[in-house]
Amino acid sequence: MIIVMKRDATGEMVQHAAEKVEKLGLKAHVIQGTERTVIAAIGDKREEMRESFETVAGVSKVVPILAPYKVASREVKPEPTLVKAGSLEVGNGKCGVIAGPCSVESEDQIVQTARSVKAAGATALRGGAFKPRTSPYSFQGLKEEGLKMLATAREETGLAIVTEVVASEDVALVAKYADVLQIGARNMQNYRLLEEVGRVDRAVLLKRGPSATIDELLLAAEYILNEGNSRVMLCERGIRTFESHTRFTLPLATVTYLHQKTHLPVVIDPSHGTGHASLVPDMCVASVAIKADGIIVEVHPEPDEAMSDGYQSLDLPSFTETMTRCRAVANAVGIQCGADV
Amino acid sequence: MIIVMKRDATGEMVQHAAEKVEKLGLKAHVIQGTERTVIAAIGDKREEMRESFETVAGVSKVVPILAPYKVASREVKPEPTLVKAGSLEVGNGKCGVIAGPCSVESEDQIVQTARSVKAAGATALRGGAFKPRTSPYSFQGLKEEGLKMLATAREETGLAIVTEVVASEDVALVAKYADVLQIGARNMQNYRLLEEVGRVDRAVLLKRGPSATIDELLLAAEYILNEGNSRVMLCERGIRTFESHTRFTLPLATVTYLHQKTHLPVVIDPSHGTGHASLVPDMCVASVAIKADGIIVEVHPEPDEAMSDGYQSLDLPSFTETMTRCRAVANAVGIQCGADV
Amino acid sequence: MIIVMKRDATGEMVQHAAEKVEKLGLKAHVIQGTERTVIAAIGDKREEMRESFETVAGVSKVVPILAPYKVASREVKPEPTLVKAGSLEVGNGKCGVIAGPCSVESEDQIVQTARSVKAAGATALRGGAFKPRTSPYSFQGLKEEGLKMLATAREETGLAIVTEVVASEDVALVAKYADVLQIGARNMQNYRLLEEVGRVDRAVLLKRGPSATIDELLLAAEYILNEGNSRVMLCERGIRTFESHTRFTLPLATVTYLHQKTHLPVVIDPSHGTGHASLVPDMCVASVAIKADGIIVEVHPEPDEAMSDGYQSLDLPSFTETMTRCRAVANAVGIQCGADV
Amino acid sequence: MIIVMKRDATGEMVQHAAEKVEKLGLKAHVIQGTERTVIAAIGDKREEMRESFETVAGVSKVVPILAPYKVASREVKPEPTLVKAGSLEVGNGKCGVIAGPCSVESEDQIVQTARSVKAAGATALRGGAFKPRTSPYSFQGLKEEGLKMLATAREETGLAIVTEVVASEDVALVAKYADVLQIGARNMQNYRLLEEVGRVDRAVLLKRGPSATIDELLLAAEYILNEGNSRVMLCERGIRTFESHTRFTLPLATVTYLHQKTHLPVVIDPSHGTGHASLVPDMCVASVAIKADGIIVEVHPEPDEAMSDGYQSLDLPSFTETMTRCRAVANAVGIQCGADV
Repeated sequence: MIIVMKRDATGEMVQHAAEKVEKLGLKAHVIQGTERTVIAAIGDKREEMRESFETVAGVSKVVPILAPYKVASREVKPEPTLVKAGSLEVGNGKCGVIAGPCSVESEDQIVQTARSVKAAGATALRGGAFKPRTSPYSFQGLKEEGLKMLATAREETGLAIVTEVVASEDVALVAKYADVLQIGARNMQNYRLLEEVGRVDRAVLLKRGPSATIDELLLAAEYILNEGNSRVMLCERGIRTFESHTRFTLPLATVTYLHQKTHLPVVIDPSHGTGHASLVPDMCVASVAIKADGIIVEVHPEPDEAMSDGYQSLDLPSFTETMTRCRAVANAVGIQCGADV
Repeated sequence: MIIVMKRDATGEMVQHAAEKVEKLGLKAHVIQGTERTVIAAIGDKREEMRESFETVAGVSKVVPILAPYKVASREVKPEPTLVKAGSLEVGNGKCGVIAGPCSVESEDQIVQTARSVKAAGATALRGGAFKPRTSPYSFQGLKEEGLKMLATAREETGLAIVTEVVASEDVALVAKYADVLQIGARNMQNYRLLEEVGRVDRAVLLKRGPSATIDELLLAAEYILNEGNSRVMLCERGIRTFESHTRFTLPLATVTYLHQKTHLPVVIDPSHGTGHASLVPDMCVASVAIKADGIIVEVHPEPDEAMSDGYQSLDLPSFTETMTRCRAVANAVGIQCGADV
Repeated sequence: MIIVMKRDATGEMVQHAAEKVEKLGLKAHVIQGTERTVIAAIGDKREEMRESFETVAGVSKVVPILAPYKVASREVKPEPTLVKAGSLEVGNGKCGVIAGPCSVESEDQIVQTARSVKAAGATALRGGAFKPRTSPYSFQGLKEEGLKMLATAREETGLAIVTEVVASEDVALVAKYADVLQIGARNMQNYRLLEEVGRVDRAVLLKRGPSATIDELLLAAEYILNEGNSRVMLCERGIRTFESHTRFTLPLATVTYLHQKTHLPVVIDPSHGTGHASLVPDMCVASVAIKADGIIVEVHPEPDEAMSDGYQSLDLPSFTETMTRCRAVANAVGIQCGADV
Repeated sequence: MIIVMKRDATGEMVQHAAEKVEKLGLKAHVIQGTERTVIAAIGDKREEMRESFETVAGVSKVVPILAPYKVASREVKPEPTLVKAGSLEVGNGKCGVIAGPCSVESEDQIVQTARSVKAAGATALRGGAFKPRTSPYSFQGLKEEGLKMLATAREETGLAIVTEVVASEDVALVAKYADVLQIGARNMQNYRLLEEVGRVDRAVLLKRGPSATIDELLLAAEYILNEGNSRVMLCERGIRTFESHTRFTLPLATVTYLHQKTHLPVVIDPSHGTGHASLVPDMCVASVAIKADGIIVEVHPEPDEAMSDGYQSLDLPSFTETMTRCRAVANAVGIQCGADV
């Protein structure tokens, strides 16, 4: 890290800060600029001690040099990771397509949807059984009953199941039925939960929190990787900004940036990322155009009647048409998007 | 709610939407404007069904009229709530002062700090035993050992203990030692945890998530209130914005706005809200000037040596001086800030 | 508009507000809900008087029903507008490609770049002669000398010239040399300038301000349209958010949303939208995939030596490769991107 | 500045970058870390060349060490600047109070308001004659006629006049009538206008743009200072964030932070900063508590009838009461707020 001294820092202050660097086992390299003195601290592995310099007398600011994440870093593992979970393949030129309703509402609904999205080219089925809802008065999901319906849908179609787990104590239960455990945006920094999904043999879809930085997202992934689970998919689902014509703002450059920084695959969620069904198809197509490793799309046979998120769900004809557009673009850019139909 | 139809919505679409309103047990009131037709849906209690109208044919947008929270609303309970927890009083003209280190590091450290902050006028001691950290490689707290040290500090000083709980399975343990359970910003929407603290006989300090709206904060409070725990304090700790000269942006108008909307008391956290020790004293003083119901301040005997958050911690002389300034302003505006010294 | 009364508003307050509505020439329609009374004000054309109701006794909030813009609205003119300016065509299935350096630095530089970007498929040349710079100590452009170099480049290549105008008093001068007048993001609400470019016979590229809402952008366009100039192109160049790994956050859903709301064409600026050359090619491709009406890309023969914005400029081989990718995707989605090569 | 090389940068790349540093007249200091090589570039005055390193082969990022502003810096002039303009004093322990309507509407209105705000303790009168409005269909101000009415109000009351100028060609005209030229938030980066007000003998109130960083604000101030006008007041008027319960988010820590970085005085605008009259008084009081150098408050005799901004304007009794509260707090913190009454 680089420690920038204040303009009026005395020689003693510089010496004190340099000694603190050495006491931490690093090498201090003092550089006299024309207006400021800076100290380069060499040898630090992760720069966690950075914060402890910010209050040292005479210090103006401290600048980190290294990224704070390790295992997720492309510098550590340059080749992209392909995550497999049943019928779903995500990464390294495979753009997985996860589709289905926000909530599992009935066996009929989920099985019918599974068949339809499969016919359109989806490679996994999404559906919420445990629903974290902003209001305690909203529908909270069918819980284990819903998980069983998802398992039935898998039996009927062969599609891998992606479903959310909201608490560490539920991980074993959800893992019994699901192929992919989804960590929702609200839980991106629920570290107990991250550690728990890090210990089971299920792939994990980790959603970015709406105000999380990329470093925070990658550090959340490290909590999972660190426990031994290497099948981690990152998911961009939109960030909170001043924009109000969309529910969140979907920054697609995240795909490109993450591909430079990490070997983990990146999935886009245009349903939450825009919050309006009419904006979802274009964002699917754009994701495929830049070789996102997957898309996760809310699809409901009757969005008007959905128990949650109907306003951002595609109906089946729209999803089918979107997939046709996506395949055309995938072809043009040389990747595989979903299953051939 | 108000359902705004599209400009080109047909009479049939309007009728269909109106029928859907009636089917939900509400009364539909159709108004023909010069350019648009709108439907007022009357009788809805909580407007949760709002979302289900956004995809109905011909609907342009749906506008909620009622606030989504109930129990927390000032309309339901006009008089302000005073939360008491041991030595701490927060609300209704009492500005509680919660001070202490980010992390409990040793018995010496916490007891010494407790004595000093009490001498300066604090009415409760904060200190983290379970620390949620962005990086898995950072210090995660002393856990139960830390809780015991906090209990010792309470014995020595009489100060109420405020400490964070990060998982529902830890609630009983933390409640054994603490007077106030803190829900951190990362966990504001960890609903399982909210429900669990709603069921124990401990006051709760609920921090606003860095990108949570005020409605989301109040709905999170409803999760707790709904379980029967009425001792809920809201805490503004800064929001995530484009500003980078502070770690978060601290919107003090939250105090005034929440005082209009809810009877729950509002505490300001200027340490996280600014992220720089040099900005903390002014934000304490400003909070008192607008009659915030409490402040929670990171104080460490040696910020340079702190195991976490040293850069935003006041040392003891600065805290003492800040309290002197706060008392002068509290006097001027007619409230009580902390304990007399 | 809909005027929502407070829960405790008296009958008199309701009557007073309704009378105020009538006094403004609108029809007041009072609706008694179970918890609130609302007043629908019918007949208002543009809802500008909305604000004047917010302080009326008993009023809780006022909800607009109509969009504030008129001439730009798709409701007024459903078919998309195609803007032509010399060699540049933008809109209605034509994705114009505007490329060139941030600043015009010399005749050699601009002519060489013009030739190269034309060879790669660009249909217009960009280049700044008047440069608004954050710091007064930065290079401010070659002014008229730069405009002349641009004109020379047009003579040599036939490419239309797109260049920024920063003050109303410069409009006539810049219009003498340029085919398209660019209004920069900093000047999106410089209304005097907007009015002035509304009065000349030149196409206008209007950039969205980094914190402007879509309504504000369309209202800025109305200032130009209103003066009689209908050749307006809107440009998304990224918004300011908490993200720091990109200079701005580029919300591509703007294209889709604007296509629903306005007939004006939408151009994407991925250079400013990301601030990093390595993210630009993917954002170009994604823009084409969703049928943006144009892209504007910073290209410099030697980005290392550029006098401004080198870090976000493509070099010539990268631009050529990007265009190849864009054409493949344009083909797949059925639009024309730039010129055939 | 510090140039951080990529992990895999070759020795040649390091040498090339170092040579580029030397070519620019700086001294390059190469430091081999355990994982990265960094180059400290010594001798740079303003670091403008920083950007030109970001695309050099092998460079990962470039970190500035010095602030980009000079004349505004507290390092250059440590003692705070007191700006005087007629009856208005702002800075160095004097909290000026600028009050009045958003728009000048009539001579009666402005003179009556001037008398009332003066009686309540205001030390200057605000009022818009040239109004930049988001919509071309909104009231745009009375222009010179309005300026004359302001001058009349000054004759009647002795209050200094603060009014906005929106275009460089209007500066001379506005300066003829006004004591303080206000640069609105939309024009913070209208550099031609900044330069023009830098050349006249009038104090300037420079408002922060809603998405401007502090560095950008100070660089905008430099444009004015640089032309020789040293009477510059900075004004925080709220930033654009995701919050929607206030029109903008008002970050009061700006006062404290700016007091550390610059000698220029800092004025708070709680009317625009919150956008709701009911939040304004508290924000005034909080500003005084942290020794802001001034407040600028919208006051209208009949907010319901105001031609603009009525929803955020205080009526006269509320303003008078707010001033009473402000004086009490000013007393407690040892500054002078407005005039004694």
